[in-house]
Formats: sequence, C-alpha cells, structure tokens
Amino acid sequence: MEKMLWEQVQLVKQKSPLVHNITNYVVMNNTANALLAVGASPIMSHAKSEIPEMINIAHSMVINIGTLDEYWAEAMLMAAKEAHSIGKPWVLDPVGAGATSFRDGILNQLLQYKPTVIRGNASEVIALAKANTTATKGVDSTAQSNEAIGAAQNIVSQHHGIVCISGETDIIVDSQQTLFIKNGHPMMTKVTGLGCSATALIGAFIGVTENKTLAVTAAMALIGIAGELASQESKGPGSLQLNLTDKLYNMSEEEFTSHLKIER
Amino acid sequence: MEKMLWEQVQLVKQKSPLVHNITNYVVMNNTANALLAVGASPIMSHAKSEIPEMINIAHSMVINIGTLDEYWAEAMLMAAKEAHSIGKPWVLDPVGAGATSFRDGILNQLLQYKPTVIRGNASEVIALAKANTTATKGVDSTAQSNEAIGAAQNIVSQHHGIVCISGETDIIVDSQQTLFIKNGHPMMTKVTGLGCSATALIGAFIGVTENKTLAVTAAMALIGIAGELASQESKGPGSLQLNLTDKLYNMSEEEFTSHLKIER
Amino acid sequence: MEKMLWEQVQLVKQKSPLVHNITNYVVMNNTANALLAVGASPIMSHAKSEIPEMINIAHSMVINIGTLDEYWAEAMLMAAKEAHSIGKPWVLDPVGAGATSFRDGILNQLLQYKPTVIRGNASEVIALAKANTTATKGVDSTAQSNEAIGAAQNIVSQHHGIVCISGETDIIVDSQQTLFIKNGHPMMTKVTGLGCSATALIGAFIGVTENKTLAVTAAMALIGIAGELASQESKGPGSLQLNLTDKLYNMSEEEFTSHLKIER
Repeated sequence: MEKMLWEQVQLVKQKSPLVHNITNYVVMNNTANALLAVGASPIMSHAKSEIPEMINIAHSMVINIGTLDEYWAEAMLMAAKEAHSIGKPWVLDPVGAGATSFRDGILNQLLQYKPTVIRGNASEVIALAKANTTATKGVDSTAQSNEAIGAAQNIVSQHHGIVCISGETDIIVDSQQTLFIKNGHPMMTKVTGLGCSATALIGAFIGVTENKTLAVTAAMALIGIAGELASQESKGPGSLQLNLTDKLYNMSEEEFTSHLKIER
Repeated sequence: MEKMLWEQVQLVKQKSPLVHNITNYVVMNNTANALLAVGASPIMSHAKSEIPEMINIAHSMVINIGTLDEYWAEAMLMAAKEAHSIGKPWVLDPVGAGATSFRDGILNQLLQYKPTVIRGNASEVIALAKANTTATKGVDSTAQSNEAIGAAQNIVSQHHGIVCISGETDIIVDSQQTLFIKNGHPMMTKVTGLGCSATALIGAFIGVTENKTLAVTAAMALIGIAGELASQESKGPGSLQLNLTDKLYNMSEEEFTSHLKIER
Repeated sequence: MEKMLWEQVQLVKQKSPLVHNITNYVVMNNTANALLAVGASPIMSHAKSEIPEMINIAHSMVINIGTLDEYWAEAMLMAAKEAHSIGKPWVLDPVGAGATSFRDGILNQLLQYKPTVIRGNASEVIALAKANTTATKGVDSTAQSNEAIGAAQNIVSQHHGIVCISGETDIIVDSQQTLFIKNGHPMMTKVTGLGCSATALIGAFIGVTENKTLAVTAAMALIGIAGELASQESKGPGSLQLNLTDKLYNMSEEEFTSHLKIER
C-alpha cells in the first residue's frame, strides 16, 4: 500500500496536472502554493464568460464554496455541470455546509453534478447529507464520528463518489471500503485553509489516475505526513504553514513510507 | 491592569468566539490566521443571501472596507444593520477613508449602525470624522496626532463607541478616557494588513467580554507586543509576518506583562 | 549600468510611490508585501465607483488579469482608459493570455490604452501578439524564445511601449534595444505569483523615473537577484517566498551589483 501511494505522489510530479480551482478568497494563495509544491499547475478563475473553456483545458477541477456569493454560485454550478457532462474529475469542498440555507441550497444543486470526491470535516459531511434531502434518514441520532461515516455512506450510496471526512483521523469512504489515515498534528487546525489545501491536492491527484480512491488516499496521506513532520520544527502556526509547504515539496520516499499510518 | 488585560487574552482562548468578517481580499488569509492564532474562529462570508444568518451565528463582526465595491458595500451595510439591530458587537476598519467620495459615502452610512469600535490610522480617523459631517468642527486646524485624538473624541461623542487610532503609539479613546499603548516596531508598517489583523483581533476580544474598552486595549497590546518580540528575530517583513503569527499563538504571560507599555 | 540600476532601487525607497493595483485575488497579499518591502505604497481597489479618483491619487498603476471576470474587466478598462488619458504610467500583466477568448478579447481592448510596460511569460507574450490581430504575422512559425522576442517586438512596434518576457532569462524589449537578465532560480516557479510580484515592482519603478526601460530593468534585476539569494537559504517554496520578501527589503548595494548578470 505504501508503495502504491508513493507512486501516486510521483505521478503528480511527472504529469504536472492542470487543476482548475473555483475556490475561496481566503485560501487561494496557499492552495495554489500547495499545488505547485507537489508538482501540479493551478489555474484559478471563475468568470462565467470563460468557465467552459477553462474546464476543457484542465485535467481536473476543485470547487470550494468558502466565500461564495450569488455570482460565484452560478459560476460553480456552470463549472460542475460542464465537468460532469464531459467526464472531468472534480472535488467539492462544502465549506460551512449547514451554516446557512443559501449554502445548503447551492450544495444540493452541486451534488446533482456528481462530484468525484467530496472532502469536508465531520460537521460539514453530516450537514451535506442532511441538505441532500433524500439521504437524510437515520443520520441525526448517532454519535459525531460514526454519524459522519454514516452520512458519508449515505452520500456515497446515492452519488457513487468518494467522501473524505478530515479530522484528527481522516476517513475515506467509497462504495466498497472505509480507510482511516492517522497522520497530522493538532496545530494544523490553527492554520487557515489546510483543509482547503487537502481538497486542492485531491484535485491534483484525481487528475492523473483512474483509481480515484487511491488518489484521494495518497493526497490525504501526503498532507497529513507533511503537516506532522512540519509541526515538529514549528514554533507556531506561522512557521507550520511555511514548513508544510516546504515539506510537500521536498518529502522523501523514506519520510512518506516510514510515517504513514493507515488502516482499513 | 496587566493582569486584567492578560485575562482577556485567556478569555478569547477559552471561549473561542466565532468572528464574522467582511473584509478585504488582501488580508483575508492573514487575518484568519491571526484570529486562529489567538484562539478565535474566523468566518469569512459576504453573500447578501446569507449575511443575516451568519451574523446571528457569530459572537461578533468585523467590517473592513479595504477592497470594497458596490456589491460588497451593500453587503456591509446589510450586515451592520443586522448587527446593530440584534445588539451584536462589531468593529469597523475604515481603510482608505478620505481617499474617494465613494468610500466616505459608505463609511457615513456604516456609522449610522453605531460600530462598537472603530480602528484606523490617524489619517483615516481624521477623514472619518470629516466624512461624518456633523462631527467636523475644529478638526482641521490642529497637529496630526492631537488632531486624530480630537477627531476620535468627536466620533465618540456622537456615536458612544470606542475609537482606536493605531500608529507608533496606539491611542484608545472612549467617552471617559484616553489610553496610550507604546508597543510595536517600525518594521510592522512594512507588512501588509497588520492594522487589519489588529482590527480582527479587536473583533474577537469584543465578542467575549462586556467591558469593550478593556477588550480593545488587550487586543492592541497583544498584537503590539507580538510584533515587538517578533521583530527582534526577523530579518525583514517576510519573517516578521511569520514570527508575529507564531508569537500571537505562543506568547507567555511573562512576555506579555513584562513588555506591556501602557499609559493613561 | 549596475550603478544606474541601483540608483533606481534607491529612488523607489526615497519617493515611496503610491501604486494602484487592480490585480488577481491569488497574489494580492504577496504583491502588496513585495511593494512594501521595496519601499512603495500599495493601493488595491477595483470599484468602478472610485477608480478614476484612485488613479489620480496614484503615481502609477498595475493591471493584472489573473482572476478577472466581467465586472473586473470593466473596471480594468475604465482604469486603463483613465491612466492613458491623464498620462499615468501603467503596467499590464496578461496572465493566462491565450487560454480563453474572453481573456484575449479583454486584453485586446486593454492594449488600446497603450500600457507603458507589458510583463508576461513567453507563452503569454506570444498569445498577446496573436490576440492583438494586426500584430500577428510571422509570429507563429519560429521557436519559443525567439518567437517571444519577435512577438514582443511586434507589440512594441505597434504600441511604443516596453515588453518584458520573464523566464529563466528575463528579456526586456523596447523600440531600440533588447536586454537580457540572467538572474533568478528555478525554484521561483514553485511559488505562486512571483511573476505578478515582478509586475507590481515594475509598477513601482515606472512611477518614479522618466527612463522607463531603466525602471523595468532595475525592477526585474532586483527580484531576480532577491530570488537567487533567497533560494540559497530555502528548503522549499514556502521558505523561498519568505526569504525573497526579506531580501527585497534588506538587499545591500554590494549584493545587488556583485550578483547582477545583464547582457545586451
């Protein structure tokens, strides 16, 4: 498994996928840097006048609703529709799902275009399953982490994609299995947008391989291990952001395979 | 005083207030990181379709007009109106006040919703007092720093809030007193948006305590001391930004109390 | 030559030009920090309601179309028209030229307002020459770098400005000469927006001197040398961004003159 995951990391470096991002203002710079550090090429654009052309150029797409508004929502829907219709892999980051009815309404529409992957934290995945009204049942009454797995399974059973719940343990759910990655460090929650960077990396990885679950797992393992190693030499979240970017860029195979903590 | 201010710093860590930001594109990432570093939880959103719901979730709000346009101005006015009507504390950063009539017009409207705190540099506070036509008199003829204090007092006497003039000395004016904080370092002016980060921290601090002047003073002291300590180990503004974020995160009580320079 | 270029660097520090930027979301923070580090004062604003006033305040202007949309395109055109009509120097960064017809259409309109300088990579400059229909001939059939020089010369012969092609070697083309700067480091391509920072610095430098070619050359030399020196002490692109900002701030004359690699 370690070897197959590391091969994915190498594949991104070799193929340098063009990743089209419609993402939030807060994290654009960091996620572009995360993509560059792993060898991918970011595009960031959102104009309705050019979205279909941009999606066609790109290998894959990232939609992150963090700072969405009415215009950006329309652009995201247009992009998701295009990606779906031409079979371009894409990942959805449902930032703030459940916080407002506007967000939930847009998410519900985006789900129609069947994201290849959804990555969110436990609350977002649970809220997403609820927003997606036909997948609601039975989600409310269980405990937080189990609940998120249940919610993820509900979404997967409806949309046949992959759901990644990130947190202290990252959980990857597809229609056949559930994987657990136990890398990372608590200080990572004090850097804005590392979840969004994880989503962007997933976008890069699903752009270069057919085995999407392998791609998601490799992306999450890479950022988890990078964060873990970076935290060891960081005095605070400022240095952590910098060291994590450096580590995404210069991680060795030995560092990757010796630190990977994965379970089925 | 030192002890009371440090208690405010601890209170933010314990209560982890949700701070809603409608701020400028340039500083969104830094201010989110500053908020996370001190223990607060940032939300950044500006869509008119969700603002009232977001304001209701948050403990406090930050409005920073740095990169405003017609849409964002409407969103800010909607947010300020909502915050005012439900009694949610909010802070206004009048970036570029006086530079254009558009800016001054929007600021004048925002003032109607009585910001709990206004934080700007001397020129912005002076321009704000002028834009606020009924508070104009006597502001023009005095020297820069005194002039800013006069302008601040004019604004306070009209709106019953707190005005913080940041600069080499930070000056905090409420209806009863004027406080002076002499922390900080000149290199801080070479990092974009540290004033905006100060405003965001004020947003966090006023979200957890009733004594708003104490909250503003603690926030300004914290970032001033963090910048002062961070500057000592920085070769330039790039390292200063990083070290300041780290120091907001890991400052000790001893560092805070031994470096605080405050006067009435 | 070294001495004249270093004098330009000093001139920016002394005059602290106000540089108005209508730029992309991804790089706003970095480019503002790059401008501050060299001693300039950035303004970032894009509201149609205030653009003419802002352009009038500023010493020079930067237009970067990275994340443009319909509103921003209108704002950029309004700003370029104003700058052209009042003779304010401005620089155009045609990010992603050739990627979509929307981008090319807007670029073609912007060219009508005769940017003082255009800075892009080889593909962007070639695409720009093609988008600029009357300058198309003879551009297609030659090799990449020669092709870019040909494209640059075509643009210059039509618009009488300066074109800077950045890459491993930076090439500066005006109506009389072609200059080559061989500073920089390959790792710089792994940091998002360093090209945009170069454009912003050009914006600062053309704001303080009449000899625009000298200004462009000094700006490109400065960022190239800063990146070269910064790379030597960087483990990856995260540290490179930080060290480059520091080096823009604290570079000595000796560092500048001893590392400069320039050819006609």
